[in-house]
Amino acid sequence: MYIGRVVGTVVATIKDEAFYGRKLLLVDRLDLEGRADGHYDIAVDVAQAGVGDTVLVIDEGNGARQILRRKVAPVRAVIVGVVDDVELAE
Amino acid sequence: MYIGRVVGTVVATIKDEAFYGRKLLLVDRLDLEGRADGHYDIAVDVAQAGVGDTVLVIDEGNGARQILRRKVAPVRAVIVGVVDDVELAE
Amino acid sequence: MYIGRVVGTVVATIKDEAFYGRKLLLVDRLDLEGRADGHYDIAVDVAQAGVGDTVLVIDEGNGARQILRRKVAPVRAVIVGVVDDVELAE
Amino acid sequence: MYIGRVVGTVVATIKDEAFYGRKLLLVDRLDLEGRADGHYDIAVDVAQAGVGDTVLVIDEGNGARQILRRKVAPVRAVIVGVVDDVELAE
Amino acid sequence: MYIGRVVGTVVATIKDEAFYGRKLLLVDRLDLEGRADGHYDIAVDVAQAGVGDTVLVIDEGNGARQILRRKVAPVRAVIVGVVDDVELAE
Repeated sequence: MYIGRVVGTVVATIKDEAFYGRKLLLVDRLDLEGRADGHYDIAVDVAQAGVGDTVLVIDEGNGARQILRRKVAPVRAVIVGVVDDVELAE
Repeated sequence: MYIGRVVGTVVATIKDEAFYGRKLLLVDRLDLEGRADGHYDIAVDVAQAGVGDTVLVIDEGNGARQILRRKVAPVRAVIVGVVDDVELAE
Repeated sequence: MYIGRVVGTVVATIKDEAFYGRKLLLVDRLDLEGRADGHYDIAVDVAQAGVGDTVLVIDEGNGARQILRRKVAPVRAVIVGVVDDVELAE
Repeated sequence: MYIGRVVGTVVATIKDEAFYGRKLLLVDRLDLEGRADGHYDIAVDVAQAGVGDTVLVIDEGNGARQILRRKVAPVRAVIVGVVDDVELAE
Repeated sequence: MYIGRVVGTVVATIKDEAFYGRKLLLVDRLDLEGRADGHYDIAVDVAQAGVGDTVLVIDEGNGARQILRRKVAPVRAVIVGVVDDVELAE
């Protein structure tokens, strides 16, 4: 899992029903100083996250499908939560 | 998933029947400014995409096989849709 | 698996019950000289590790779920042990 | 999948029977201009490829096992075909 | 799979029984000129390899578990053989 920031949305024509009614969010991956590190994902959202939110992203297919409670879902990245606090030791 | 652009096709002699009748497309991965980031994939297409299209690519084996509705398919990257719009927050 | 150092914690609002009661630790990946290499993970802890500890991290979903003794767990990184010694040949 | 070029072979003492009678080929990964990009794989061959051939490589464990028609095979990279032509759009 | 060189060992306190009696070896990944490329793995050994040996490493969870003949094993990297010869075409 990594910490990300929702920076936008993607609108696409997809025929697969696994995507019906799902919002696709663009998420920048953040480093531990909170800066975008140049990697992004297109993630499905199960945490009611919106643009600007700092979120927790799981980026592994089997884990993502389990979060979605589906055996079959062609996704790899899912937003599982909104980050409240990051505590870094000095 | 990531956003890509179809830049060409590959013709190969493959004996495995999982590939019979499938078009293999070369896809450049794009960053969020729409520029190729130097990574490419050879993807199977289920979205009737063509050269020049901006597409949504899933790059995980189990998810790819599910999109193809096959339990057995030696693929990792599948074009699942054509991108209509990318909305980036300022 | 890789060697990491626990550098902090993440507090997040996650509705998925797989995370109830689990501490999420921030782990810097170390190179063989013991320096952070710029990659981090958010890991679940099964080794009673704390901030500052040098730890062994497994970063593969299926292996992580097996360590947690769960068939279903949306995690990829788990702290499986505390490192006592690293012996490097000259 | 990616496009590669067979650059050599590896001879190793392996006790696991899954490797009996299998040739292990060294494959350089190529970029879309046909240049090695610095990454290599040790791949099992099912396409009668030889040194110097331009080949199609699948680099995902489950897909690789399916190509080999084995449920159990400790491989990740398999040469599935010989590339006849790469057509890049201008 | 890749070619590596055993450069040391890790001693760690791990409670999971899957690791009882298993030696954890530090392996530098080598490029095709035989130089360490900066990536390392902590690998389980099934080939009686020792420090200084050039080895063949499989770095995929499902394949690694199959080599270990275990359905459940939280590992991703396994040393499967000792390399006798690498033949590179000119």
